[in-house]
Amino acid sequence: MAATPQPSSVTYEELADLEAEFDDLDVELLRLQARRERPLYERRAQLVRRIPNFWPLVLEQAPPEIDQYIQPTDANLLLSALEDVEITRFEVLEADEASTIAADTATEAPAMAGSANGTTTVLPDPRSLAIRFTFAPNDYFADRVLEKRFWYRHAPSGGRNGGSGGDGGSWSGLVSEPVSVQWKPGKDLTGGVLDLAVQAFQAAGTDREADATAALQAALDKTSVDGLSFFAWFGYVGRRITAQESQTAAAEQRAKRAAREARRAEKRNQGASAAEGEEDENDADGEDEDEDDDGGYPHEIFLDGDTVAVTLAEDVWPNAIKYFRQAQEQDALSDDDFESGSEVDEPSGAPPSKKQKT
Amino acid sequence: MAATPQPSSVTYEELADLEAEFDDLDVELLRLQARRERPLYERRAQLVRRIPNFWPLVLEQAPPEIDQYIQPTDANLLLSALEDVEITRFEVLEADEASTIAADTATEAPAMAGSANGTTTVLPDPRSLAIRFTFAPNDYFADRVLEKRFWYRHAPSGGRNGGSGGDGGSWSGLVSEPVSVQWKPGKDLTGGVLDLAVQAFQAAGTDREADATAALQAALDKTSVDGLSFFAWFGYVGRRITAQESQTAAAEQRAKRAAREARRAEKRNQGASAAEGEEDENDADGEDEDEDDDGGYPHEIFLDGDTVAVTLAEDVWPNAIKYFRQAQEQDALSDDDFESGSEVDEPSGAPPSKKQKT
Repeated sequence: MAATPQPSSVTYEELADLEAEFDDLDVELLRLQARRERPLYERRAQLVRRIPNFWPLVLEQAPPEIDQYIQPTDANLLLSALEDVEITRFEVLEADEASTIAADTATEAPAMAGSANGTTTVLPDPRSLAIRFTFAPNDYFADRVLEKRFWYRHAPSGGRNGGSGGDGGSWSGLVSEPVSVQWKPGKDLTGGVLDLAVQAFQAAGTDREADATAALQAALDKTSVDGLSFFAWFGYVGRRITAQESQTAAAEQRAKRAAREARRAEKRNQGASAAEGEEDENDADGEDEDEDDDGGYPHEIFLDGDTVAVTLAEDVWPNAIKYFRQAQEQDALSDDDFESGSEVDEPSGAPPSKKQKT
Repeated sequence: MAATPQPSSVTYEELADLEAEFDDLDVELLRLQARRERPLYERRAQLVRRIPNFWPLVLEQAPPEIDQYIQPTDANLLLSALEDVEITRFEVLEADEASTIAADTATEAPAMAGSANGTTTVLPDPRSLAIRFTFAPNDYFADRVLEKRFWYRHAPSGGRNGGSGGDGGSWSGLVSEPVSVQWKPGKDLTGGVLDLAVQAFQAAGTDREADATAALQAALDKTSVDGLSFFAWFGYVGRRITAQESQTAAAEQRAKRAAREARRAEKRNQGASAAEGEEDENDADGEDEDEDDDGGYPHEIFLDGDTVAVTLAEDVWPNAIKYFRQAQEQDALSDDDFESGSEVDEPSGAPPSKKQKT
């Protein structure tokens, strides 16, 4: 009894399961961070609204993941019309607002307090993002606000990846839906591709699906990725995974992980030899991190749409003041304007020259 | 009365003060993260101790910030003798251990419970790092453990930076002390420079200081940075700032920030014109982020020592399993060995070839 386990009996699966626990903790801490940072971001928004061209200047400094997609026409439009940017971890925000409402009404309906009603509570995912741009009236489109939401979703196992079966395809990441822009006549910066993406998405499951998809694909085949407008990003889809599919997939993965952990604990208690028969059925998550596998939406108009969203949320948004300061410095203002107590200057009217990237 | 403030009355100082509030929150969240991650890192340590050569393989995949300093001899030594790496946010760990002890003894001495004894509580800084390497017996040195601590410190205002006076020099960052290595005869990989750095540091304030510093500087002048051993990193100093100096500087900066915030609040209440006379005295922190200013230790033997520490703590340590997996893949094991349920393989006896960096 109580045989010492083999010294090198660690499996990749066991390492992956531990990493999944780290990921769970990261998500929990990110949820807390989203809540705690909210009042500071609200104060920042109030401050920077008093600074002319704050957001255009910030975007001018955006890292290559974004900058490579901003065409000269996009840059001019942003500089002349972009008034505000707001990024929220909307699942967390909405859950907090709902629980505030619940608390407010709790005195009238005490019976509904708490959520111990038997259903599994799905915690809000802080990785889901709402990215909202506010524009002044401009020559290109009629919208004053363009908002694109990204949901963090888990792909069903097996599913489109097919092939190896089992848990092979445990992709998770950001998915979205095409957002239409009300272009003014002759001003569509995407050359009609964004509209087609919206139509193909809306036609899914209807008898128009084949035609709409074919029209989109034909337009994509004629479009050069190099010159594509940044506004095509609003058409990004990623994968088509519903909230329900995602919740089921996540619950399945979690259950399998728990089962593996239980087996390992049993093994440790009984000693390695006794549990030899219950060999793992090779059902690890597989950590399939190849983003280019065939589970992606096959008619994507903006392949790196999720990377752009993550870069906006994790780099541009938290570092906006730093990027703004960089932009001011590159506008070659005189040294005197940089005394720390001085007021923030209005940038010169002309579009700042495109920055040098190092 | 109640004149509306100027629409563009935002100062750089106001933006910098808001950024400082974000920084405070980051530190608070990092403190929480350090506490919450600790049990997971302990479990990881237990797992990876069962994997031969785990840490040498991880370091082999280290990013350029570290890799550029690992000479071929260093790499051989690490591969043959490095048994364990442990990085702790030691200020947080020690505070938690102390409060556990306090709680344990609280039943016997209830009067000392709580810290409301009038002194300002200095919260543990989660940015301070203890980096600990454990070695097998080897041909190069007698130590089994080499630990280097980095303290997050705030430079006194004015101070060595001199020049502009005021709050110009609000540097903060990691400082350290040289750690000696008990080299075996003829085996000192730093060619004696590390010993001289230790001696110069210890001689500070004594009548040996001038001689020890001159000896160190003479050795540095003869040493090529390019071929310097990674082990010279143990000699990094950064800046000489005591804990007391740092606490005083941080408290001063905090008080000035609070005073500025109070002035701004008053201005907002009274209207901009009424408060015109109390113009800011240009006493912003100045956000002097130039790391190459002359406040650094002038006889540094390893200029990027803090960058190496931060890269170890924020990249190599959290991503160790990922780097290990990369190393295994680059060792060109056959595909069969990568079935997810399979056991982690012993690496081949020969030192793995140096990886290609992309």
